[in-house]
Amino acid sequence: MRYRARVEYDGTDFAGFQLQPNARTVQGELEAALARLNGGERVVVDGAGRTDAGVHATGQVIAFTYAGRVPEPELARAINAQLPRDVAIRDLRRVPDGFHPRYAARYREYRYTVWNGPRSPLRERTALGVRVPLDVAAMASAGSVFVGRHDFSSFGAPDDRSPVRTVHAVRVRRDGRLVTIDVRADSFLRGQVRRMVAALLEVGHGKMDDVGLAAALAASGPALNGAAAPAKGLCLRSVALGRRSVDDKEDEE
Amino acid sequence: MRYRARVEYDGTDFAGFQLQPNARTVQGELEAALARLNGGERVVVDGAGRTDAGVHATGQVIAFTYAGRVPEPELARAINAQLPRDVAIRDLRRVPDGFHPRYAARYREYRYTVWNGPRSPLRERTALGVRVPLDVAAMASAGSVFVGRHDFSSFGAPDDRSPVRTVHAVRVRRDGRLVTIDVRADSFLRGQVRRMVAALLEVGHGKMDDVGLAAALAASGPALNGAAAPAKGLCLRSVALGRRSVDDKEDEE
Repeated sequence: MRYRARVEYDGTDFAGFQLQPNARTVQGELEAALARLNGGERVVVDGAGRTDAGVHATGQVIAFTYAGRVPEPELARAINAQLPRDVAIRDLRRVPDGFHPRYAARYREYRYTVWNGPRSPLRERTALGVRVPLDVAAMASAGSVFVGRHDFSSFGAPDDRSPVRTVHAVRVRRDGRLVTIDVRADSFLRGQVRRMVAALLEVGHGKMDDVGLAAALAASGPALNGAAAPAKGLCLRSVALGRRSVDDKEDEE
Repeated sequence: MRYRARVEYDGTDFAGFQLQPNARTVQGELEAALARLNGGERVVVDGAGRTDAGVHATGQVIAFTYAGRVPEPELARAINAQLPRDVAIRDLRRVPDGFHPRYAARYREYRYTVWNGPRSPLRERTALGVRVPLDVAAMASAGSVFVGRHDFSSFGAPDDRSPVRTVHAVRVRRDGRLVTIDVRADSFLRGQVRRMVAALLEVGHGKMDDVGLAAALAASGPALNGAAAPAKGLCLRSVALGRRSVDDKEDEE
C-alpha cells in the first residue's frame, strides 16, 4: 500500500531532508522509523522537496510504500512513536500506487522569518535576527520583480533541469518586529528562496532597489555573488498536491 | 552605577535562573559575561524571579552594579556580545542605587503554552503537547477560582514567607491549536504556576470542575499530589516595576 503524509521538522540538527551517508537527515530518520515497523527492511521515503541543512518544515509531504504488519489505523501513531522529537508526521492517508510527491506537487510555499530587533534567544532557531530596521515596503515592492515565469539561474544552483521557474507570489509583511517573506512557486532551484531573501534583505537595508533586483535576475552570473540568507529562517510550509482543485492543499497552521 | 535590564532566555539548556554550583544557570551566564567586562571581578546579578530549570523568559528583569571600563552607551551591546545564544539582555537603563528587581516588582506575568494537537517538533521546546482536545471554556471558568487573595500552600512549595498571594488574573484562550494560559500575580510560590496549570489541564480533560478546584485550593495538602505541568511550556513574560504607575511596565512583544 502506498501512503502519503505531511511532515514537520525542526531542521536545526539535520543535515537536510535528503538521505546522506554519515549524516543525520530527515529522510534517514523516517526510513529508520519505518524499517523498525517493517521487520528491519528498508522502506524508501520520497519527499516533495529536498530542504537544505538547517531548513525547517511544517508542510513537507512524503510518500512511501508499506506492506508491514502495522494496520493502517495505527500506522501514523506507530511511526511517530519511532521518530525523534524533532520530526513528526501527520495527515497520513492512502494514495494510488504511482504517487510521488515531487511530481504530484503543483506548487510549494516557503516562509522566511526575520526577527527585526534586538537579539531574541527564543527565536534563535527559527528566525534570522536583523537589528537595523528593515524597509518592508521597499522589500514588498521589490518582491514583485520575482513574480512570473523567469530564468532563475542567477538565484539558484544549476541542476540537470531547466532553470526556468514560475513564482506565483512573494509577500513581505511586518507584524511588530517580526518580518515574514512568503514565496510560492511551482518549484524552486536549489538555494533559490534563500538567495531571493538575501536580495530582498539588501533592498530592506536600502542597498538595492527594484531596478537593481531586476538586473540581477536578468544577469547570467550569480546575484550578490551567490549570497544566501541563513537556513534557520526558512520553513517549507506547504506543498499543494493534485491537478484539479485546491482542496487537496495541505491545511496550514 | 546601578543598572537594570530585561532578559530573554530559552530555558531549555539551563538549570534555572538562580546561580548553582556545577550547573549552567542564567544568573551564572550573566555574571560570567559581566565579570569579563569587569577585569575578572564578580558582578552580582539580582533577578525579579527565580525561574526553574527549563522555564523560559521574555521579560525577566535583572539589576546589577557595574563600575567597570565599558561606557554606558556601549554596555548593553558589550554584555550581549559576551552572552551565549540562548540568553540576551535589552532595555538596559540606570536605576537608583538601592534598586532590587524582586522588591521593585509589583506583579509578574507568566504564560503557559499548550499545543493542543498532533506532535509539533517546531514547538517542542516551548509548548506542552496535548493531543486530546481541551475544553478551554471550562478551563477559563475554572481559572477564575484562583483569582484573588488566597493561601496557595496547596499549589506551591513552602518557603520562609507567607503562602498568601494575590492572583490578579487568569486568562485561558484558544487560537486554533494553540492554548495559552496567562497568569498574573503579585508574586508566586515556587512551582505555583505549573501546579495551577496542571489543575487547569485536569479541568480541560473533564476530570475536575470549578468546585473540585476550589476544594483543592482550600485544602491543606498538595493539590493533585503536587503534580506540576512540565517546565518547557512556561515563560516569564513580564515584570511590572514601580509603585506609582503602570507606565514602567516592560513592553511586551
